[in-house]
Amino acid sequence: METISENACFAGTQGVYTHPSKSCACDMTFGLFLPQEAKDGPVPLLWYLSGLTCTHENAMVKAGAQAWAAEQGIALVFPDTSPRGDGVADDEAYDLGQGAGFYVNATETPWAAHFQMWDYVTKELPALLEESFALDMTRQAITGHSMGGHGALTMAMALPGRFRSVSAFAPISNPTASDWGRKQLTAYLGNNETAWASHDATLLMQDKGFDGPILIDTGTNDQFIDLLKPEALAAAVATRRQQATLRLQPGYDHSYFFVSTFMEEHVAFHADALYA
Amino acid sequence: METISENACFAGTQGVYTHPSKSCACDMTFGLFLPQEAKDGPVPLLWYLSGLTCTHENAMVKAGAQAWAAEQGIALVFPDTSPRGDGVADDEAYDLGQGAGFYVNATETPWAAHFQMWDYVTKELPALLEESFALDMTRQAITGHSMGGHGALTMAMALPGRFRSVSAFAPISNPTASDWGRKQLTAYLGNNETAWASHDATLLMQDKGFDGPILIDTGTNDQFIDLLKPEALAAAVATRRQQATLRLQPGYDHSYFFVSTFMEEHVAFHADALYA
Repeated sequence: METISENACFAGTQGVYTHPSKSCACDMTFGLFLPQEAKDGPVPLLWYLSGLTCTHENAMVKAGAQAWAAEQGIALVFPDTSPRGDGVADDEAYDLGQGAGFYVNATETPWAAHFQMWDYVTKELPALLEESFALDMTRQAITGHSMGGHGALTMAMALPGRFRSVSAFAPISNPTASDWGRKQLTAYLGNNETAWASHDATLLMQDKGFDGPILIDTGTNDQFIDLLKPEALAAAVATRRQQATLRLQPGYDHSYFFVSTFMEEHVAFHADALYA
Repeated sequence: METISENACFAGTQGVYTHPSKSCACDMTFGLFLPQEAKDGPVPLLWYLSGLTCTHENAMVKAGAQAWAAEQGIALVFPDTSPRGDGVADDEAYDLGQGAGFYVNATETPWAAHFQMWDYVTKELPALLEESFALDMTRQAITGHSMGGHGALTMAMALPGRFRSVSAFAPISNPTASDWGRKQLTAYLGNNETAWASHDATLLMQDKGFDGPILIDTGTNDQFIDLLKPEALAAAVATRRQQATLRLQPGYDHSYFFVSTFMEEHVAFHADALYA
C-alpha cells in the first residue's frame, strides 16, 4: 500500500492510499479520514460509496463529512467506484465501465476480468483497512449517494451483522426496473435476471430487510428521480414494517449541495447506532 | 446577468451567475449562496476570495462554508480570481495571468486591458449584487485563502468602513517581499515599487491598520509558508496593537482540508461582527 497524500483535517487526517487489488486485478485508490481519536485506539468506521462518474475523491472533497465524523470520532472510507487503468475495459457511456462499477462482481465478458467491486468493497478492502489502520471493524456502518446508495443498501441487506446502520442519499432503489440498472446488470451479470435480484434494494427489502435502522433522503427536485424509483423501495419498506426513515426533501436535487446539506444528520444517525 | 445554475443547499440556494463585466472587459462568473432568510429580506454578506489557480467554484464546493453561513443567516459570494477567455492575456505559469489576478488593477501591457480585479471586486460586483439580490450591503465582511487572503486583507484595510471584519486562511501576507508577489506586482503594476505598497497587507498594517477585528489562521505545515510570510504581518499587527487573532495551527497545510477545518470559526467570527 502506498500513501498518496495525508492532510491534517478537523484535528484528524484525511489520507489517500493506493494498493494492488487482487479482486480487481489492478491498482485501486481510496480515501480514509481518521479522527484524532484513532491515535489512541480503534474507532468505528462509516463507509461512503460514491455514485456514477465519481472516484474516491468526490465525496472526500465535496460532501463535508469530515466535520461531522470528527465530531463523532468516526472514521470514513471513500472507495473508488470501479477498477481503472488502460488495461481495464471501459465504455463510452458515463454509466457503464470505469466510474460505474455498480458494486457487483461481473460475470460477463469483457467486464469479469476486473469489475469485481462487490468483493473489493465487502472483502478485500475491509481486510486491508483492518490490518493497516486503527479501526474497530465490529462497529461499521454504511452510506452512499445514487449508485453508491444502491451499493450501501444492497450490501447492508446482503451481509446481516456487518453494518449496524445504513443510510443513503438519493439511492438507485430498484435497478432491475430502471434504465439505471437494467443496462448495467445486463452488461455485468448477463441476461438471466435471477442473478440481478441480490443487487436490487427493493427486492432485497421484500425478501429479507435489514436488521437495523435505515435513513434515506431524496430531493423532490432530483433530476434523476424517475430513475431512482424511491417509491418502489418506500412501498417495500412499509410492507415489511422495516425500521426506517424515508424523507423526500423539498427543492433539493441530485448534487453534492444536497448531500452536504444532510450529511450532519446522516453521520449523527450512524453515530447513534455505532455507539449504542 | 445569466443564471448558470441554482441548487438547493442548506435550506437556501447556491447559485452560479455570469455577467458581462465592464471592469474586466469580459464575461465574469461568480457563485452566491443565499441563506433561506434572504427570502424574507436583505441578509449580511461575507466575501470569499480564492487563491491561485482557483475559479469561483473551488471554495463553493470544497470549503464547507454554506453549512455555517446557513446557520448564521449570512450570504456568501465567491468571485473568480481573474478575467478569463480566449481574448484575455495569459501566461504559462500557474501564478500569473488567468487564475492569478492578485486583486489589483493592472497598469502594464498586456495585462491592463482585462486584469482590473480590484475594481471588479470592490466596485462592479458589489453594485451588481446589491441591485440583483436581497443583500444588506451595510453589513459586509471579507475572507479569503492564500492569494485571496491577500485580497481580503488589502481590501479591508484600503476601504475603511466597508467591511466590519476581515479574516484569512494562509494569506500571502507580505507580497512585496515574496516570490508570491514581486513577480506578479512587477508584471501587473510595473517596476515602480511605490505602486505596490497599497497591495501589501504588512505595509498596510504598518501604515493604517484595520478598524475592526481580524482573524488569521495559517498551518504550521503549510508547504508555502515561506512565501506567505505570516511573521511579517504578525510583527506589524503586534507593533500597531491592532485588534487581531493570529493562529498558527499545528500540522495543517495549505489545502482545503485546512480551510474547511476552520471555516466554522471564521464564519462565526464574522457573524459576531455582522450582527453586533
